[in-house]
Amino acid sequence: MTAPFSTLAQFRTVLAEMPGPDVTAREAAAARDAVLTKPSGALGRLEEIALWAAGWQGTDRPRVRAPQIVIFAGNHGVVAQGVSAFPAEVTGQMVANFEAGGAAINQLAKVANARLDVVALDLDRPSGDFTTGAAMDETECVAALAAGWTAVAPNADLLVTGEMGIGNTTSAAALAAVLFGGKGEDWVGRGTGVDDAGLARKAGVVDAALTLHGDSLTDPLQALARVGGRELAAMAGAMAAARSARVPVLLDGFICTAAATVLEKAVAGSLDHALAAHRGAEPGHAKLLAQLDKTPLLDLGLRLGEGSGAALAIGVVTAALACHSDMATFAEAGVADG
Amino acid sequence: MTAPFSTLAQFRTVLAEMPGPDVTAREAAAARDAVLTKPSGALGRLEEIALWAAGWQGTDRPRVRAPQIVIFAGNHGVVAQGVSAFPAEVTGQMVANFEAGGAAINQLAKVANARLDVVALDLDRPSGDFTTGAAMDETECVAALAAGWTAVAPNADLLVTGEMGIGNTTSAAALAAVLFGGKGEDWVGRGTGVDDAGLARKAGVVDAALTLHGDSLTDPLQALARVGGRELAAMAGAMAAARSARVPVLLDGFICTAAATVLEKAVAGSLDHALAAHRGAEPGHAKLLAQLDKTPLLDLGLRLGEGSGAALAIGVVTAALACHSDMATFAEAGVADG
Repeated sequence: MTAPFSTLAQFRTVLAEMPGPDVTAREAAAARDAVLTKPSGALGRLEEIALWAAGWQGTDRPRVRAPQIVIFAGNHGVVAQGVSAFPAEVTGQMVANFEAGGAAINQLAKVANARLDVVALDLDRPSGDFTTGAAMDETECVAALAAGWTAVAPNADLLVTGEMGIGNTTSAAALAAVLFGGKGEDWVGRGTGVDDAGLARKAGVVDAALTLHGDSLTDPLQALARVGGRELAAMAGAMAAARSARVPVLLDGFICTAAATVLEKAVAGSLDHALAAHRGAEPGHAKLLAQLDKTPLLDLGLRLGEGSGAALAIGVVTAALACHSDMATFAEAGVADG
Repeated sequence: MTAPFSTLAQFRTVLAEMPGPDVTAREAAAARDAVLTKPSGALGRLEEIALWAAGWQGTDRPRVRAPQIVIFAGNHGVVAQGVSAFPAEVTGQMVANFEAGGAAINQLAKVANARLDVVALDLDRPSGDFTTGAAMDETECVAALAAGWTAVAPNADLLVTGEMGIGNTTSAAALAAVLFGGKGEDWVGRGTGVDDAGLARKAGVVDAALTLHGDSLTDPLQALARVGGRELAAMAGAMAAARSARVPVLLDGFICTAAATVLEKAVAGSLDHALAAHRGAEPGHAKLLAQLDKTPLLDLGLRLGEGSGAALAIGVVTAALACHSDMATFAEAGVADG
């Protein structure tokens, strides 16, 4: 899909004009759910998932036939501040690992029967260190949003966006602090595994960003440019593209959710097509999900990124839609209904 | 597999002589886990699942290649006491639905690539009403245990046992009360959806059973015969057969877990090969899991039975083992390790 914007203001306009769910399809799915061969409500959240997907896919029998996982990779100038346990070179090394099929997300994509795309975003040109300037100027941010928008497959019926970027839990924490308030210490976590000193450095970096950028952060899209990063902007762009095509989205962990939150803060309701796939171990993630009023499907202590938690949840959604769309009704099966 | 017992005493002896996990394989899996291309521990409980499966499958690269779901169906004399929202005929009707492919478990089995077997246990001969006598005599209970034992496929590498039996949440509640103490009201729930009066009847039925059978319930296997049912005994027999072949097991909801608990109470450690797949909505389930010190993988509000929650978790286990067994190591991928 070609991106229908070339400025942040145009992107905001696009967000404001997004379609809602197909209410008729959703109601038809609810009517079907009521006569399937199970006690009412006995499939719990699987029923909620089916109705959600029915609305966005626009059919009373939604299915997962062409799930897509897109991983966006970016490098971060802020790693110069010592915020990660891994060196910046690992971003590119992991992209090679994705392309060779050796990472966790490759195995999860296979199990989920999902298409996996990897988009490396100017890895040799890290975003700016946001403690001393902007991470991206508007042109760079728009380009990253557009890279995300165009990465969504035309036939995708369920989207997962993942990320790889050494240093990006710090960007996500800075974004979260901007969007919801609080200081660095309220939003940082150990990421890939920093020690206590690293954790304190991360908090200090976020606080420095809040001080430096100050009032220019009142606009969520400007905040994305100032303290985010290319892969965060690309995830936001991809989730917006999915919404424009009414493709349901599964939110991954802290970084993905922080990027998603930019959309919701820019235009309320922008994440109505997204379910929280899991609660990651990064402590800021649970706080973001609470702010978004989204209850995660899974809670398995993952803190890997790469879209891994959301990829795992594709199986749950696939199962939910298979139950909904393929079960017999009481009448079809000749089963007494209560 | 032929059942190696013909009395409850022999079954207990079999339980007492069960094999443990392959510690060497588990240690080799832990060593492999430490060098895979991810931050240490970043896959959370997926790593725990991989090590658990490695021990039971006896290999440092465990996999889910031949998962089996077996549903056991039984009828219950205690339905005469008005403990279910559905008539007893539904048990047989749902067996026909399983055989025709129309139930939730059929769709979940397909998504999980699992073999699905259905074993109907003397549906035209319900277990005795345990408020007036024993549900089963020893011969009947042993036959049900053996039916479960022999239902496990010789090549299964992951087992789920499910059940269908109108009235069986009341049997499960009675068993739970016997095994852990408490009164009926501590263990009953709404099952398929009884109203307040039905809930009170269920509690009264359990209390009546505790009074009637009294001291004869100090032996968990005798308790299974007195207040259980054929499908509960068969699930216990199948889980024991799995243990004898070192096949890992996923525990489903309240009824399955109550049946499993009989094994653990008869011989401590009998459920070391079992993970709790999910926490069901039936309130007694969380209490049983706490008593067994097992933390469920999923918590999606299911209360269907049929093995549905455990079948859903097959996908999580499959994903966990695929990550563990197929990811590249840092050395293989040329990725810097922290």
